[in-house]
Amino acid sequence: VSERVRDIAHLSHIELLTPKPEESLFYFEAILGMEVAGESGDSVYLRGFGDYERSSLKLTASPQSGVGHLAYRTHSREALDRRVAALEAAGAAGGWIEGDLGHGRAYSFLDPDGHRIELFHDSERYVAPPELQPALKNQPHRYPGRGVGVRHLDHVNFLAVDPGENRVFCEQSLGLRLTEQIVLDDGTEAGVWLASNQKSYDLTYTRDVTGTHGRLHHIAFFVDQREDVLRAADIFLEHGIVMESGPHKHAIQQTFFLYTYEPGGNRIEVCAGGFLIFDPEHEPVVWTQAERAKGQAWGMQTVASFHIKGTPPVAEEDVLLARSAAH
Amino acid sequence: VSERVRDIAHLSHIELLTPKPEESLFYFEAILGMEVAGESGDSVYLRGFGDYERSSLKLTASPQSGVGHLAYRTHSREALDRRVAALEAAGAAGGWIEGDLGHGRAYSFLDPDGHRIELFHDSERYVAPPELQPALKNQPHRYPGRGVGVRHLDHVNFLAVDPGENRVFCEQSLGLRLTEQIVLDDGTEAGVWLASNQKSYDLTYTRDVTGTHGRLHHIAFFVDQREDVLRAADIFLEHGIVMESGPHKHAIQQTFFLYTYEPGGNRIEVCAGGFLIFDPEHEPVVWTQAERAKGQAWGMQTVASFHIKGTPPVAEEDVLLARSAAH
Amino acid sequence: VSERVRDIAHLSHIELLTPKPEESLFYFEAILGMEVAGESGDSVYLRGFGDYERSSLKLTASPQSGVGHLAYRTHSREALDRRVAALEAAGAAGGWIEGDLGHGRAYSFLDPDGHRIELFHDSERYVAPPELQPALKNQPHRYPGRGVGVRHLDHVNFLAVDPGENRVFCEQSLGLRLTEQIVLDDGTEAGVWLASNQKSYDLTYTRDVTGTHGRLHHIAFFVDQREDVLRAADIFLEHGIVMESGPHKHAIQQTFFLYTYEPGGNRIEVCAGGFLIFDPEHEPVVWTQAERAKGQAWGMQTVASFHIKGTPPVAEEDVLLARSAAH
Amino acid sequence: VSERVRDIAHLSHIELLTPKPEESLFYFEAILGMEVAGESGDSVYLRGFGDYERSSLKLTASPQSGVGHLAYRTHSREALDRRVAALEAAGAAGGWIEGDLGHGRAYSFLDPDGHRIELFHDSERYVAPPELQPALKNQPHRYPGRGVGVRHLDHVNFLAVDPGENRVFCEQSLGLRLTEQIVLDDGTEAGVWLASNQKSYDLTYTRDVTGTHGRLHHIAFFVDQREDVLRAADIFLEHGIVMESGPHKHAIQQTFFLYTYEPGGNRIEVCAGGFLIFDPEHEPVVWTQAERAKGQAWGMQTVASFHIKGTPPVAEEDVLLARSAAH
Repeated sequence: VSERVRDIAHLSHIELLTPKPEESLFYFEAILGMEVAGESGDSVYLRGFGDYERSSLKLTASPQSGVGHLAYRTHSREALDRRVAALEAAGAAGGWIEGDLGHGRAYSFLDPDGHRIELFHDSERYVAPPELQPALKNQPHRYPGRGVGVRHLDHVNFLAVDPGENRVFCEQSLGLRLTEQIVLDDGTEAGVWLASNQKSYDLTYTRDVTGTHGRLHHIAFFVDQREDVLRAADIFLEHGIVMESGPHKHAIQQTFFLYTYEPGGNRIEVCAGGFLIFDPEHEPVVWTQAERAKGQAWGMQTVASFHIKGTPPVAEEDVLLARSAAH
Repeated sequence: VSERVRDIAHLSHIELLTPKPEESLFYFEAILGMEVAGESGDSVYLRGFGDYERSSLKLTASPQSGVGHLAYRTHSREALDRRVAALEAAGAAGGWIEGDLGHGRAYSFLDPDGHRIELFHDSERYVAPPELQPALKNQPHRYPGRGVGVRHLDHVNFLAVDPGENRVFCEQSLGLRLTEQIVLDDGTEAGVWLASNQKSYDLTYTRDVTGTHGRLHHIAFFVDQREDVLRAADIFLEHGIVMESGPHKHAIQQTFFLYTYEPGGNRIEVCAGGFLIFDPEHEPVVWTQAERAKGQAWGMQTVASFHIKGTPPVAEEDVLLARSAAH
Repeated sequence: VSERVRDIAHLSHIELLTPKPEESLFYFEAILGMEVAGESGDSVYLRGFGDYERSSLKLTASPQSGVGHLAYRTHSREALDRRVAALEAAGAAGGWIEGDLGHGRAYSFLDPDGHRIELFHDSERYVAPPELQPALKNQPHRYPGRGVGVRHLDHVNFLAVDPGENRVFCEQSLGLRLTEQIVLDDGTEAGVWLASNQKSYDLTYTRDVTGTHGRLHHIAFFVDQREDVLRAADIFLEHGIVMESGPHKHAIQQTFFLYTYEPGGNRIEVCAGGFLIFDPEHEPVVWTQAERAKGQAWGMQTVASFHIKGTPPVAEEDVLLARSAAH
Repeated sequence: VSERVRDIAHLSHIELLTPKPEESLFYFEAILGMEVAGESGDSVYLRGFGDYERSSLKLTASPQSGVGHLAYRTHSREALDRRVAALEAAGAAGGWIEGDLGHGRAYSFLDPDGHRIELFHDSERYVAPPELQPALKNQPHRYPGRGVGVRHLDHVNFLAVDPGENRVFCEQSLGLRLTEQIVLDDGTEAGVWLASNQKSYDLTYTRDVTGTHGRLHHIAFFVDQREDVLRAADIFLEHGIVMESGPHKHAIQQTFFLYTYEPGGNRIEVCAGGFLIFDPEHEPVVWTQAERAKGQAWGMQTVASFHIKGTPPVAEEDVLLARSAAH
């Protein structure tokens, strides 16, 4: 494994669908402190102060919430070609698209659960306009001093009917590596954490208990300090933003987290901490059903909605939430 | 460049020489909160709670302070062979050694300035003894709750008469990439920051103004939060440890830093923050003489000793310090 | 009110009863980072690095958990006499005792719910022994750099069958002022927060839902930063200490909290933040039943045990916990 | 002393003079995150989110920088009368004024060094307009989520030709208590820290080395966490605000500090931490000349300008700065 060329460089951006585009834009721009980096059709492109590419979030008006697509950038054009060859050999029915604001041609395909993923290499390196010029030249744009102040897109968590199937696909076709996973007593993989680089994960699949395909659990933006997450909680509170869970520390991956719902209905995490994986021969950490039942790192039990709800919403969620409340 | 196989996986460990081995051990074990992971001859091996290998610091009794060697781990045995071939092709007069506590055979050579560097692949994955078992299985050993509590070795800063020469060597023979540098008005490279992976640097060369070869400026250990650095300052204060500079934020690389001297005379940094570099085509950030003269990120001027002193100490330092004080 | 001489200077110390004195001592000394300041009979006296008196915690071996007594220091001997006169006029059946390690004669009495409270003035100012001498002379003893590192005793929360009755007593006989309270729809006071000085509270009474008298809900120690509370959570985790709730922020008083159980069974809080009350005519903040039902500041619902359990434990708790779980 | 009625409740507000009113307003409103609470003539009134009175800062356009007046609120009208009687008995040539936006009639006088001080009791309790309503009812206005986010005015530092003379005046006429001081080898008091309540200081006098009367060294605003001070440094950096010194920790009073210059030329501190003084018989901590020479808590030497410059500026400063640079 360690010899294999790593073709995927990093998670690049996510397209989020929202039925309330103006309110969602306010959430990302005014509350999270992101900057608008472009507009096109029904979409607004946003970025954190540490994103080196043009944008990490494409916010698209849509009748329903959920995810449009997720994009990884490859190390080179050749790496892109290698991944496309591997995907096509594996039967992924993808195709090339022209690109988008901020990046060139991309290969677009579906993961086994039906989420759209794009791979591209040619990317526009962001150059800040005068009013966003940073004081330190090694930073893409100035620290906003407004709202939460997120640095960059950290990771995406898809829901999937069968996380294990998607894990195998990501390992084999994309070259992602599994770093942690939950394996239930019956052998089912309830959650898989995958990484394209030394971050300990950038893509996660957890089980969609409603049995629906192609849904989103959450996307996460990174802040530098755990204190930034605590401060974010006060900011969300003042804006009436629903905080579902946290701030607390995950046992899995040790991320310090806070989950909110943006006005369009999608779950958004603000996170800090965690660790890097330096070991080229790192063995996945496997969490058992009993270990997972212990709750989060410091003992908090995550609320039922966290394990049930995704976007777009489905009717089955209400049944499961009612059942959970009846316990 | 992005196509080239990255053979070096990460900075593994550093051997530090100390004329006061017991006091130095107290500094690393009781004050920094590291654990002893072995002893051999005149050396004690230490580790932070996040180091996945056996140890990241080999502390060796010696008549003088300074560095024994620095070691990088490669991605594979084949990667190790490739680097050795490249080194030998470049005329590096190295040789194989049997290995050491915690790792297998290694190729040992000198950088152009005369610092000893070792490359190896076979490494012992650390398994915590019962009393150091962590509560969370994705952590090598338990959080110490003692002293500063450093997570892992972060980077090493060598002094060199010609940083540029060493930069070229590291790029060409080791495959490290330059991420930031200081280039003076006369074209001299006064400092170079190099990375083997997505950390923005793990090896730095800055100019030895005394004209001496093979010296150490400092080694740095990482803590998770900037607050940990502030807390460390209080702990150093109570132990009478000399704090030379900080806590403050570097303009270059944006690391939040605190420089101390361990009892053996070596400069040790506790650091937090910084950022990762995801761009496979990242262009080095070049700082000019004028930009560097502005001081650190928030305006602090670093004290003269920071720019003059290294280990082992040399007489020329005193001349330069006296001249600096006379200004 | 603002004209009335404030006779009570501050919360001084608490006597905690423990059936597991050695394990409890380990909790306070090794995990919280307190220092032993004396021993006498079955009691060990402990202190935080910011306590100016000899000790803030008297830990006494006892068949059952719970509280021995709570002590306030008065501004002067005359203030003490005034309070005793007021107490006796109000029919408090107290009496003088000889004093204890660290303070002189004290007046001992019961609050309406049956908790023992002592008032005294003459107090021994702590002088650190050589090994605990602080680097900064304006600090009572050195920052421990061990465990959590609590600064001082912050507040005590008694359970009471009728918090309102105890509130009236504390206001009238002790001169404490009410700063916040929970008033249920039927007019019952479910919780009262009282202050002797500019801290926003140092004594709290909340309802004992088991109907038992004289019990303790928790005592709290202060740390300087919210980050210290997060770090404390990692330390408790590594020691297997039960964390009942938090870290999170209270809506009432805005304290950043983490509740644990020390091995003797008493609930201990580590807290940070909050605010001072400068207004001499401050009006109590009244929280309604509906407001309280919203949970903590950032939305967390406190677990059932938090509202039911106290020390010493009583059988009725189990009935209530079972009933709560059945919901 | 402890018996004496404390007549002064707390530091209420400061009037700051600025020759650049618009730029200064931008500094306090956009960068510090304060809210405008009124305007009158050449003055704008500002407040932090934790100030319970209408405002803590009156910003007044003026040909020169410096301080207009400082105001303390008394515990009651009777307390105000007592202080006025004491002041007049001591020969303070003060007089009554009608009051100002946010407070009623006040007694206005000069301290021995010539700074104007006002005492008042009747104060308008701030009620937030709808757009500033806080989510938690125990907070005066909502957390801004904009800029630094200061909670309240913390303290004022006047320069004085003879700090000791002003210390005696404040103790005897105002009832402030001395908590810490610097006494030079020749017996001169180089700095005195005074408190009206359990904060360890709210008014400081340090020596004006230019020999000028009535000048200001700095005013300070409080933030909740040390991390807020670090974050403030990044915000100041992005706005090109001059940071003179810090972030660092003072040895005296242990405040974590960052000194900046607002555009009008006045030195403004953002601070966190410190401690409360609970001891009614607290003895002042005396720092010697040698102890002060050690620099700040963690070893930083404060820059020369910090010891020389005040507002309004005087020509003598340049002479002293030049002499200092020549060393």
